[in-house]
Order: sequence, then C-alpha cells, then structure tokens
Amino acid sequence: MRIVDIIEKKKNKEELTDAEIQYWIDGVTDDSIPDYQTSALLMAIVLNGMTSHETAKLAEAMMKSGDVMDLSDIEGVKSDKHSTGGVGDKTSIALGAIVSACGLKLAKMSGRGLGHTGGTLDKLESIEGFNVFLTEKEFKKQVRDIGLAIIGQTGELVPADKKLYALRDVTATVDSIPLIASSIMSKKLASGSDTILLDVKYGEGAFMHTIEDAKKLASAMISIGKKLGRDTRAMITDMNQPLGNTIGNALEVREAVETVKGEGPKDFTELVMVAGEIMLIQAGKANNKVDARKLLEEAISSGRAFDQLKKMVEYQGGNVAQIEDTSLLPQAKYKTEMKSKEAGYLDHIHSMNLGILSMKLGGGRERKEDKINYAVGLEMKVKKGDKVEKGDLLCTVYHDKELTDEWIESFYDTFTYTDKKVEPIPIVEEILE
Amino acid sequence: MRIVDIIEKKKNKEELTDAEIQYWIDGVTDDSIPDYQTSALLMAIVLNGMTSHETAKLAEAMMKSGDVMDLSDIEGVKSDKHSTGGVGDKTSIALGAIVSACGLKLAKMSGRGLGHTGGTLDKLESIEGFNVFLTEKEFKKQVRDIGLAIIGQTGELVPADKKLYALRDVTATVDSIPLIASSIMSKKLASGSDTILLDVKYGEGAFMHTIEDAKKLASAMISIGKKLGRDTRAMITDMNQPLGNTIGNALEVREAVETVKGEGPKDFTELVMVAGEIMLIQAGKANNKVDARKLLEEAISSGRAFDQLKKMVEYQGGNVAQIEDTSLLPQAKYKTEMKSKEAGYLDHIHSMNLGILSMKLGGGRERKEDKINYAVGLEMKVKKGDKVEKGDLLCTVYHDKELTDEWIESFYDTFTYTDKKVEPIPIVEEILE
Repeated sequence: MRIVDIIEKKKNKEELTDAEIQYWIDGVTDDSIPDYQTSALLMAIVLNGMTSHETAKLAEAMMKSGDVMDLSDIEGVKSDKHSTGGVGDKTSIALGAIVSACGLKLAKMSGRGLGHTGGTLDKLESIEGFNVFLTEKEFKKQVRDIGLAIIGQTGELVPADKKLYALRDVTATVDSIPLIASSIMSKKLASGSDTILLDVKYGEGAFMHTIEDAKKLASAMISIGKKLGRDTRAMITDMNQPLGNTIGNALEVREAVETVKGEGPKDFTELVMVAGEIMLIQAGKANNKVDARKLLEEAISSGRAFDQLKKMVEYQGGNVAQIEDTSLLPQAKYKTEMKSKEAGYLDHIHSMNLGILSMKLGGGRERKEDKINYAVGLEMKVKKGDKVEKGDLLCTVYHDKELTDEWIESFYDTFTYTDKKVEPIPIVEEILE
Repeated sequence: MRIVDIIEKKKNKEELTDAEIQYWIDGVTDDSIPDYQTSALLMAIVLNGMTSHETAKLAEAMMKSGDVMDLSDIEGVKSDKHSTGGVGDKTSIALGAIVSACGLKLAKMSGRGLGHTGGTLDKLESIEGFNVFLTEKEFKKQVRDIGLAIIGQTGELVPADKKLYALRDVTATVDSIPLIASSIMSKKLASGSDTILLDVKYGEGAFMHTIEDAKKLASAMISIGKKLGRDTRAMITDMNQPLGNTIGNALEVREAVETVKGEGPKDFTELVMVAGEIMLIQAGKANNKVDARKLLEEAISSGRAFDQLKKMVEYQGGNVAQIEDTSLLPQAKYKTEMKSKEAGYLDHIHSMNLGILSMKLGGGRERKEDKINYAVGLEMKVKKGDKVEKGDLLCTVYHDKELTDEWIESFYDTFTYTDKKVEPIPIVEEILE
C-alpha cells in the first residue's frame, strides 16, 4: 500500500477502504508517513468529504492509536458527556454532581480552555488544592466509590488525533465535519464509557455557527458512536449568548454550586436538566423524560447532588469549605458595574466577544502557556430579549487590574439593541439520537 | 501575510492575489514555508482550480525564483519550442536544424527521459562526444554563430518548480492544468526566448489523454505566455502511436538525420513541417503557411538543414562522421524481426507500452540514476490503420541481451486488430494561438 495512492483516491472522491484508513493512521502515529502527504490527504478530505463508514473507521483507527481506557471493572453503566465548547459552559460540574446522585457513573476526562472558550479543568482548579491529575487507579477507585470523577487525560490517549490536529491547525483543514467528528469521537471512545451524550453548540460563540451545521456534526458523531456500539445521543444547544450568567473560573464554580442546589440560572438549569434526562434514559435509570426529570429534581432538592459535588472535591484534594461557602473562592480586587448606555430590547449579546473579554481580564489563555487568574470574570445581569433602560445594570466585572478604554469599548460593542420585541431562543434546540 | 490564510482562501475557492502567490513561491524557494503547508495548498489548487490570472502570476513567480536567461545580446528573434513529451519524439533535433537553416535562432534547453518518454539530451548524447553541458557564454556564442544550440539547463533555473514538482509527485497533486501549465511555462519563460511553440500531445502515450484536456492545457499555457508578453502558440498532436518509426536514442538520431535530408517518415515530417511553419510565422520570417512551407522545403532540399545539424554537432564536440554516415552511430548486437501473429487492420498501437519496452531494452531510464544504452530500441514497420497479414513484419528490435518471454508477450499485447477499415488520425489535430 502506498499513501500517494490513498491521496489519489480521495482526490478523485472515491471511498477509502478500512485498510487504507488504518494504514494512514498507523503511519501518522509512528511518523512513517510524512506530514506533507498527510496534509494533502487532509485537504482532499476537507474538499471531497468522507462517507459515514469512512468517518467511523477513521475515529476507530484514531482511538486505537494509543491507550484505551478500560472501565469494565467498574460496575454499572459508565456515562460520558461532551460539549463542543462555549462561553460560560460549566455544565460538566453541575451535571456530574446531579446525575451521579441519581446513580450514574460519570468517569469524565475534560480539557483546558483556549481563546474565548473556557475549560472544565481550569474551572475546577479555581478550588484550592483540587487535583485533576489522578492515576488511572485513583480515577477508577473514585468512580467506584462515589460515581463521579473529572480529571485531565491520563496516559497516551489518541496520539494520532494530537498529531493530526496540530497539522490541521496550520494547513486550514480544521473545518470538516468528518475530521471534527472523528477527532471528538476518537477521544470519547478511548475514554471507555458505555454511553455518550454530545452537547453540540451552535451560534456566534460556538464552533458551529448554524443549527444546520451543528446538526450535521451531531449526526456524524452519533453515526460513529452507533457503528462502534456505543449509545450516542446529542443535544443541539444555543451559544448565541453566554450559558448561565457567569464567565470566569471561580464565578462559574459558584454558579455550578448554585445550580446543584437548585438556585441556578434558568437557561443553564434547563440545559443541565435536559442533559440529565437523556443520560438517565441512556443508562436505563429512567424510561422517559418525565420520570427522569423527577429523579433529577429529587437529587437536587434532597441535597444529594450537592453532597456529590462536595465528595468529588474532597476526593480530589480540594477545599470543600469553598464549595460550602463560595465567597471563600478566589475573589477579584475590583468589582465594576457596567451600565447600559442605550435603551431597547437586547437583540444580540455576542458571546464570543464576552469570552475574549474574560480572557483579557486574565480568566483565560491567549496562548497555551498562559497562566490563569481564577478570580476574574463577568457576571451578566441581562439575557437576550430583555428590555433595558439607559443606566440599567448589564454586567458586573470582576477584575484585578484597571479596565482599559479599549476593553470597555469592546464590552459595549458586545450588545446590540432593537426597538422591537425580541423572541428568546430556546436553550435546547433539538435532541438527536 | 500568513500561508495558512492563503490556503484557507484557496480552500474556499477564492482567487489569490499576486502578492499572495509571490509570498507562497518566495517561501517555497527559500524553504521558509514547510512542505506540509505547500502540499495542502497544492491539493486545494488541484481541486478548486486557479483563474488564468493566478496561473500566469504563478508561472511568473516561479520563473523569477532563480536565474533567468538573458538572450537580448543575441540579434534577431530567439525562438523556442517545447513538447509535453511522447514516444519517438525526436522533433527538436530535426526541427532545430531546419528552422535555423531558415534564419531562426533556436537557443534550446532540453531535458532527459524518464519512464516511457525519451529525452532530447539522451538522444543527442548517442552521438560520440556530443556535449550538452555548455556554459552560458558558450551557449550564446554558438547561437550567435550558427543559430542553433540544444543543451541541458544552465544555472539555477526555476528552483521553485523543482521543489514543487518533487512534492507534487508524492502527494497526488500532479494532474492539475494550472500547475502543469505554470510549471512548463515558468521554465520556458526563464530560458529567455521571444517566441514559444508548444507541442501538446494527446493520447494513450501522452500526459494528456484526450484532445479536450490537451487543448485546455495548451490554452492555459498560451494565456500565461501572452500575459507575460511572449508570442506563444500551440499545436495539438497525436500520441496514440509512436511518432515516426523509431524509438531509442541512436535510432531516433538516425531518423532525425533522414528527416532533415527530406527522407523522413511521413507523419514525423508533417509534424516538423507544421511546427516549422508556425515558428517561421512567429519569427516574422514568413507571412503565411504556404510561404513558410516553401522556405522549409528549400532548406531541406538545398542541404542547408543538414549542414545546420552537422554544424551543431561539430560545435558541441560531437562526431560529425556519425551524422554523415549514421551506420557509425552505436549499433546493437542483435536485430530481431517481430512478425504479426494475426491478420487485420491495426486498430491500436499502444505507444506508452512501446516506450516502456524500449526502456526495458536499456534505451530509457526506469529510475533517474539509470544508465542508457544508446544503441537499443525499436524500429516500427507499421502504422495505425495498416492492413497486416499473419507473418508480416511489425517491427525490428535492436537489442544487446536476449529478449525475455515476458518482453515478447508484452510486445504482442501492444497491437490490437480489427476486421473493419480504420481511419488514420491526423498527426496535427489543431493549431491554437
């Protein structure tokens, strides 16, 4: 087999065989195929596509390129969820506590933030002492003991994806549904869970800008999961404004805690509840949404969800006092209230811009090596569609350095107003299975 | 400027600016752009194409990537011709002698053969002592003195093309009209002639398989030439059977000598005469084809064309006696007559296969580093459309080693017969300007 013939086939829009895809990914993994051949093939895939069979095979080959987590020695159904990334997305923390309180086992590997998107690991690390680096043994013991653990990647998971991603980034071959879907799913498959729920976000602050593209990506991922024997479902959710009210690490932990106690913002709570419903049904803990919702509400109102969160923090070495009293979480030096300079209905709240503004306060990373300031961030006081008067509070900014004029100008550019009433967008647009 | 943005644009089927193309080719030339980015861009160009403006700019940027021959200190119009390569193509040798006898200046850089295609330099080197490595000074002096020189590349001509070609070869990005056209034309432009005649071959033994593709390539090259101020014309010629009767280096020199003396095969003579007509018109030596043909015929019948050939051989250190008596050219040990096993009209004579068979005798190179046996080759006795009886002579094989069964079997596979009369194909299909 020669890689040049495989490139030729894809250039001619032919379907690659399983063996050809395996040959390619083997060569990427052991560096026997040079980058210049892989990048030509990637561009041919971007422009000529892949069938769902090819995409599933690619995900499988990538999954097998490194370590694959074996969770079979943990009893019961192991659940996983994945978000394609957004602004203010603290879902895993709240959802993990609630569904594990309903008996699910969530053994989750999360990532870090970059650019306008935050990362669950960074958020958890705003809790003093919280350790995301568990050994596989510690990780499994924790899931066995309390049903919940959120950690960074252990071992050498999906090295082929790391290499491909680095190459895609510099060859303009990122935006391809088969490549995105197989990249995400290879990691989900390698982390060993039985069920996978995908939160595919659409909108201005998300990777997929339109509902249609988000649905295409979700369908591609579901197809991969099904072909490889995992119960995979997806929810298409809105990212045209930040999720919940807070953006910034400690602020988001506080909001996750509030949500676990039943005091969270409406949109975020709704997203968590819908996700929980699907996960309970996937795990066979409920037969329908109504029953599932009851179980979730009971987990919250009984305090068991909150207990789960505290247990996870305790197991992972974090300061539980900060969860019991979130005012003990890192606090910024300054609090500035940003007031509206206009009146009208809020038409757009550009979530990507808010993510970048939070990053610029120090709450996120511009480059991988940047350090994070856990205390800073934004607390939104308005949602899309709200009627706002001049002088009304839009947002409280938590910051450690003075806000620059440029920052303030960019903040006000985030909001657009209209005279007409604006229909709010549902947080969960659709569920696909 | 970032190369990733240029790749992104071409991926989105946008037209690249002159500055972007220049930036890319500069980066290819000085190795500041890694191969993996160039190969992604090449694949995007193969699949999304280039406008004629982009293609001309690419050719120009490649031309300027290295030395550019300055022929302005040679008086008169400097003419050049280029063939896209075929089997039995000894055109430059015969044509050069004839047109220079009509007062044209032909300062030609040629290439070597690889695979089934021969190279003019290899053919000339079958003449004892013939030197294709002249300095620029020697080359120009010879053109000034006798109006004719055929040599290998001097200096560092078009280094960007060399690098791109090496990459295209291993990334399945060869078959793209803009890339082929700009590659050929960058070299023609860099060799400094005023007029360019392109012999674009089509058919089974050519790079372009159909007349349509050959015309597309020709048009793309003419467009580049015109945009860069060179009189560029093209002829679309048949390569569905070998050109002339001989394949193999010394055999082809013999046939070129015969043609220059007016004793060449009909198809090859016709191609040379049509090419000569166009070149004389391009150089302003004739106003129309009829006048041009008269000049060419006179050059042959007067013996001036033959004199020109001898002069070139003499100037370049070759043994003129071998031109005066071609039986002194390298001779193979064995001569085997191949007779037809079937009867009928010859429907196809697979020229590519014959090129490979000649290569296998030692007359060509399988790999770049292979040595050539100048004496061996094939002398065809039939043409497409001929009526052949069982036992009729098809071809004389000149060889130094015994013919293998495999070779003989492959030889007979070269011919297909039919019961019905076959219309011969004209050697020159069309002239484009």
